[in-house]
Amino acid sequence: MSLNDKSWFTEIYGDSTAFSVRYKRKLYEETSEYQQIEIFDTDVLGKVLILNGCFMVTEKDTFIYHEMLVHPAMSLLENPRKVVIIGGGDGGAVAEAVKYPQLESIALCEIDSKVVSSCREHFPELSSGLDDPRVRVLYEDGAAFISRFENEFDLVLVDSTDPVGPGVALYEVAFYQNIRKSLKKNGAAVLQTESPLFMPDVFEQSVKKLRGVFGANGATPYLTTIPSYPGGLWSFTMCSETIDPLKMAPKQLNTKLNYYNTGIHEAAFALPEFVHRML
Amino acid sequence: MSLNDKSWFTEIYGDSTAFSVRYKRKLYEETSEYQQIEIFDTDVLGKVLILNGCFMVTEKDTFIYHEMLVHPAMSLLENPRKVVIIGGGDGGAVAEAVKYPQLESIALCEIDSKVVSSCREHFPELSSGLDDPRVRVLYEDGAAFISRFENEFDLVLVDSTDPVGPGVALYEVAFYQNIRKSLKKNGAAVLQTESPLFMPDVFEQSVKKLRGVFGANGATPYLTTIPSYPGGLWSFTMCSETIDPLKMAPKQLNTKLNYYNTGIHEAAFALPEFVHRML
Repeated sequence: MSLNDKSWFTEIYGDSTAFSVRYKRKLYEETSEYQQIEIFDTDVLGKVLILNGCFMVTEKDTFIYHEMLVHPAMSLLENPRKVVIIGGGDGGAVAEAVKYPQLESIALCEIDSKVVSSCREHFPELSSGLDDPRVRVLYEDGAAFISRFENEFDLVLVDSTDPVGPGVALYEVAFYQNIRKSLKKNGAAVLQTESPLFMPDVFEQSVKKLRGVFGANGATPYLTTIPSYPGGLWSFTMCSETIDPLKMAPKQLNTKLNYYNTGIHEAAFALPEFVHRML
Repeated sequence: MSLNDKSWFTEIYGDSTAFSVRYKRKLYEETSEYQQIEIFDTDVLGKVLILNGCFMVTEKDTFIYHEMLVHPAMSLLENPRKVVIIGGGDGGAVAEAVKYPQLESIALCEIDSKVVSSCREHFPELSSGLDDPRVRVLYEDGAAFISRFENEFDLVLVDSTDPVGPGVALYEVAFYQNIRKSLKKNGAAVLQTESPLFMPDVFEQSVKKLRGVFGANGATPYLTTIPSYPGGLWSFTMCSETIDPLKMAPKQLNTKLNYYNTGIHEAAFALPEFVHRML
């Protein structure tokens, strides 16, 4: 079967697989200083945000990504107060973070102001957390931003794109070292670390670099399913000098969610055999 | 971006999303009495089997599907000896089952002999289990086959297509009742029950029908990620009158696998919030 180019958006991954969605109309298109930004309205995935030709957010499944980025660490941290989110200009990670009344300060450090402004217009629900008085939005390079802090944050979340364009610096050891320095002793960082099945090299290298920085037991990958990302099977890695998610039980959260719960938390850290063998 | 139709195979799901893979060549094409069968050789997914335009098997990810169909039940059953697999003409489920020396008899009941013969030719590794002396291949309707047995099988595995074409009968209450009748008292059945995210109605109705037949605690869904299936997040449902996977610990298996382990077993039964709310 073939797709009519006029009403389908297609992300081609590695010139070898592709995921497409039929759209009703293109709502937004702009080439910012950093990347191409497109927003489509689709039949089954709702609105979708595309950066440099890659699916970043779909209204249908984005709850999985953002809940699994934010809540596993939040359910393990003791009395977290200061959070920084690097990337994540769509506001989805912030929307999960503002559900915690104990957080005093949530900084969103997004390099591309056009991502924030376009998502504010077209994903008002997803970006509604940006209006919370505890949230500060900073338009600057996340790697440069984090390098200026020491013993400052309870939680650093890296909501990056793939390691292309503005995302490259967010996969480097220097960045990981600066994250470690920016964390309080009992703090944690969570980074999206790509697909162990479709991007095995990026996944493996990211986890190994993070273990080099945080120690052999200090960087623990966990998995979930993101339907609109290549391969579906997606990883995050939790890093901390003191919090070992394999030895701690998650606290029950008071907030109502669509994906995450304590059962899913423990499940996410169970790794398939082929992933164990990679690490 | 657009796909060059000449070298891409595309599965369009629900006229609204599509998954495509670039292929090197088409190895096989036939319209059997039951369905269209195609086999392609691709760059990144290896060989792929397509039935009626839908991805069934890819060499890259099929280990996830077949391991998660077979091993969760096998790790809970006490002394299983007789297994029947309905559908599954590719041989992948049989390949996992023959890893258990304690099994005495493995029946594969596949309606379409062309699926078996084409996979024997093009997926020799996947279908190699069919040569095991304990395996009998029967070319007949699975629903009719299972209706003839009572108190016969330790394990019934339903490795069906979507509920279209020859797969329709494998989603009906009468079939589920006959599975229950065919099982020994301490036996179990596992059925693939589609995606809770992309086919929520089929998933919900399948689980509810199975609970009508096996009792409210007798049909327990579990999840995994199948990258080449629509939505990626995929369900199986384990049914039994005596085995409750939520209360039993899986036995450690002696066989070397690529996906399944006891951690993955327990993780698979943890359901996301939105799935809990559906059931």
